[in-house]
Amino acid sequence: MHALRITRAEDFPEWYQTIVREADLAELSPTRGCMIIKPWGNGIWERIREEFDIRIKATGHENYYFPLLIPLSFIAKEAEHVEGFAKEMAVVTHHRLKAVDGALKPDPDAELAEPLIIRPTSETIIGDAFSRWIKSYRDLPLKLNQWANVVRWELRTRMFLRTAEFLWQEGHTAHVDEADARQETMWALENYRSFAEDLLALPVIAGAKPENERFPGAVDTYSIEAMMQDGKALQAGTSHYLGTHFAEAQNIRFQDKDGAMSFAHTTSWGASTRLIGGIIMTHGDDDGLRTPPAIAPHQVVIVAMLRGKPEDGELLKYCETLASEIAAGAAFGAPIRVSIDRKDAKPADKRWDWVRRGAPIICEIGPRDAAGAKVSYIRRDQLRDGDKVAVHNLDRAAFVSHVERILPEIQGALFNEAKARLEANIRSDFASFEDLARYYGADEESSEFKGWARVAWSRPTGGELETVSDRLKTLKLSIRNAPLAQPKSFRACIFTGRPGVEEILISRAY
Amino acid sequence: MHALRITRAEDFPEWYQTIVREADLAELSPTRGCMIIKPWGNGIWERIREEFDIRIKATGHENYYFPLLIPLSFIAKEAEHVEGFAKEMAVVTHHRLKAVDGALKPDPDAELAEPLIIRPTSETIIGDAFSRWIKSYRDLPLKLNQWANVVRWELRTRMFLRTAEFLWQEGHTAHVDEADARQETMWALENYRSFAEDLLALPVIAGAKPENERFPGAVDTYSIEAMMQDGKALQAGTSHYLGTHFAEAQNIRFQDKDGAMSFAHTTSWGASTRLIGGIIMTHGDDDGLRTPPAIAPHQVVIVAMLRGKPEDGELLKYCETLASEIAAGAAFGAPIRVSIDRKDAKPADKRWDWVRRGAPIICEIGPRDAAGAKVSYIRRDQLRDGDKVAVHNLDRAAFVSHVERILPEIQGALFNEAKARLEANIRSDFASFEDLARYYGADEESSEFKGWARVAWSRPTGGELETVSDRLKTLKLSIRNAPLAQPKSFRACIFTGRPGVEEILISRAY
Repeated sequence: MHALRITRAEDFPEWYQTIVREADLAELSPTRGCMIIKPWGNGIWERIREEFDIRIKATGHENYYFPLLIPLSFIAKEAEHVEGFAKEMAVVTHHRLKAVDGALKPDPDAELAEPLIIRPTSETIIGDAFSRWIKSYRDLPLKLNQWANVVRWELRTRMFLRTAEFLWQEGHTAHVDEADARQETMWALENYRSFAEDLLALPVIAGAKPENERFPGAVDTYSIEAMMQDGKALQAGTSHYLGTHFAEAQNIRFQDKDGAMSFAHTTSWGASTRLIGGIIMTHGDDDGLRTPPAIAPHQVVIVAMLRGKPEDGELLKYCETLASEIAAGAAFGAPIRVSIDRKDAKPADKRWDWVRRGAPIICEIGPRDAAGAKVSYIRRDQLRDGDKVAVHNLDRAAFVSHVERILPEIQGALFNEAKARLEANIRSDFASFEDLARYYGADEESSEFKGWARVAWSRPTGGELETVSDRLKTLKLSIRNAPLAQPKSFRACIFTGRPGVEEILISRAY
Repeated sequence: MHALRITRAEDFPEWYQTIVREADLAELSPTRGCMIIKPWGNGIWERIREEFDIRIKATGHENYYFPLLIPLSFIAKEAEHVEGFAKEMAVVTHHRLKAVDGALKPDPDAELAEPLIIRPTSETIIGDAFSRWIKSYRDLPLKLNQWANVVRWELRTRMFLRTAEFLWQEGHTAHVDEADARQETMWALENYRSFAEDLLALPVIAGAKPENERFPGAVDTYSIEAMMQDGKALQAGTSHYLGTHFAEAQNIRFQDKDGAMSFAHTTSWGASTRLIGGIIMTHGDDDGLRTPPAIAPHQVVIVAMLRGKPEDGELLKYCETLASEIAAGAAFGAPIRVSIDRKDAKPADKRWDWVRRGAPIICEIGPRDAAGAKVSYIRRDQLRDGDKVAVHNLDRAAFVSHVERILPEIQGALFNEAKARLEANIRSDFASFEDLARYYGADEESSEFKGWARVAWSRPTGGELETVSDRLKTLKLSIRNAPLAQPKSFRACIFTGRPGVEEILISRAY
């Protein structure tokens, strides 16, 4: 018996929906395609935000906040950008409601002269500001970031992975030349890689997107890709070198040292609440989530086993002493985050709530622990010993000093498990497209674990690339990226038979 | 000569716009009525958010995130609420754009069956969730908060004070009975008071809003009011006891201990980026902002007086040593926030940038300081000695230990100055409405400092209160609140002549 009513093996998508709901992460809202992010999910996002913010500020970026609503004419400026986003935007057309025959309706007298778009991303409105702020090479580089909500109308939604509204950070920078802008693009990519691996315990592969998967308006798009437990890929962060496309569309020019006017080279990069979906599908098990300690809202939860009796007071006092001793310790460079669950509920229910959420260490303190200065605890990453829950018991002092050591150990264990899965499941033995097709098959209901393929290709472009993409689509596959780390020589391209020029990752994806 | 091109005395509203722009706080965006919040303004908001978040989490509230877009039918549920908000909402009617004759337009085939409203506040969508989550008295109290952007269509906008989009926190709670909900309402009010006074150095008066100034749908609304340097009031936070109005409209019911079903009593409370407007108009002077150290993004800024020469390396090294020594100290319970300005700009320009932003302590480090292990510095709250800028000089070790002491001193000085202004400018000697009218006059262009009036009234309601409100409106006045602290006996009501039952504050307001 597991804590979730469905296992990963039985039905992975259904397991995902169940864990999102039962681990207090999120739930669907009455607004189509939007979610309500609940405390444990929101707490994980707050931790991501805090940690990420430290890294970007330490590298000279500053946070701004730009308007949610973008005038329609701004979106129209960059042609490819329009093409890529115009199909999925929320459009504000009125600024007032009116009661008409007893029903509230948009007031026809309050129609906007120019519709406003809820930002799907902010290149256009930030680019407009860049064009006003940037005059001279001395104003460059201009490196900013914002934390914001964005809306993209999506037909098929799935919590955290694809929702009409989501939360994210978007970095936007402007530079004097291509070299500086490309350096920033690669810095952002590397920052996403190390953040995902070190904080979220998500092993990823960083690489360049093929031409047809680039951000609308980008010269080059890079991504980090993580492998989920069903073998699919999740794009977990992207970084774009935008060349001078947006600068030309928006007149972002500067006077260089010699007095000549040049267009700035811009970049953008973003990561979103989608990361939480990646954490769930990487670290979840059939008992719920196993939250990486570095980003767990509470790293240690103390379940006070209250009985509604006078002794409860003594027990709580013991829990508080324990909590303050634990909080005096540090892990991942910060004080340990510890919380006491004082809820008026059955101790067993409280235990399983925290197991499902995946608090890294769960203490269960009863009168016997309090009397003997002991701590009974569960390590979420080693929850079971056979069929039984593995409850350990230590002297309080020993436990307290132990916590500082176990938390990084759990973080490491989660990462290593995911890393081993990633490394063991990239097949590079496909000599032809037919080989690939045989392995992946075309059965769309198949939920069998397939992992990724790494193959050489000749980097076709234009119509030829579209053909490749269409052939892959019949197998429900797509090109994820061309990893940064490449061998010295390549086999023949499995699509064209021509000499290979790089290796790419291919897989099913979220 | 002052650092701003206009003084408060010359033109207070123009001075306000100037300081907002020149202190890197915000600027108007091309989206009508919306602002771009710039790094110093955004940094102040981040500090407010962090500090406020600690306080609400410490009192058992949890953060959630609810959708930006609310179905129109939700807004229609609570009648007074509709009345209060329906006139100023952004309405999303389409979910796609289409090129029509070469121009992008909302696609007629993508009209939403039910329009969506961008949240002006979230009582309706959170109330809907409450109705699903709350089943039993064991689920209560339910205390949540969210950090979000909201949109209210405003005709006349002013940065931070009244913008179409603003950032805020909104607390929403549900309770078993009126007593518990009222206790929460008063807790939130007191939390705003202490937060404003202790962190923002804004002395405020907390009290109850008159009936006609209540939040749409509230039984009681409380506010904190701060006095700006032009004598006007700024409402800086509100807390509402909503009774069972929203619970009845949205069916938020629970089974009590005896098995009977009751409606929950709800509250809501909010504070926004408007607080930054209050900080500016309270602490700004003719040289720019004086940012209260407790919420200053950088408490100490080290201006490295670089000359583009080889010695710059040595100088920067000295600045870094100084910065790390300062950062090892603490103020307001946290490590001191120190920053080095390495920009390639004239030292004098850098100095004045930080004076205008109001960094509490500005160090100016030149080769002589570095050679002699000295620190030259400016205290922003004591910027001038006569016409000259007062630059102090201390041994580095003495300065470093001094900083921990000066920061709270500056915080206290700013608070005391504002507190003295508030206390000296509340007149309570008006015996009649005519007295009041004579003092305030009706000249709408008058920018003379008038301060507030404190008068007794009989607390008229309905039509009689409307008359009072209209009479005050002719003087550009409004009732701010009835302070929580009241005397034992009252003079006659200046409006009705009947016996007074409480004292209220009256003033011009933002």
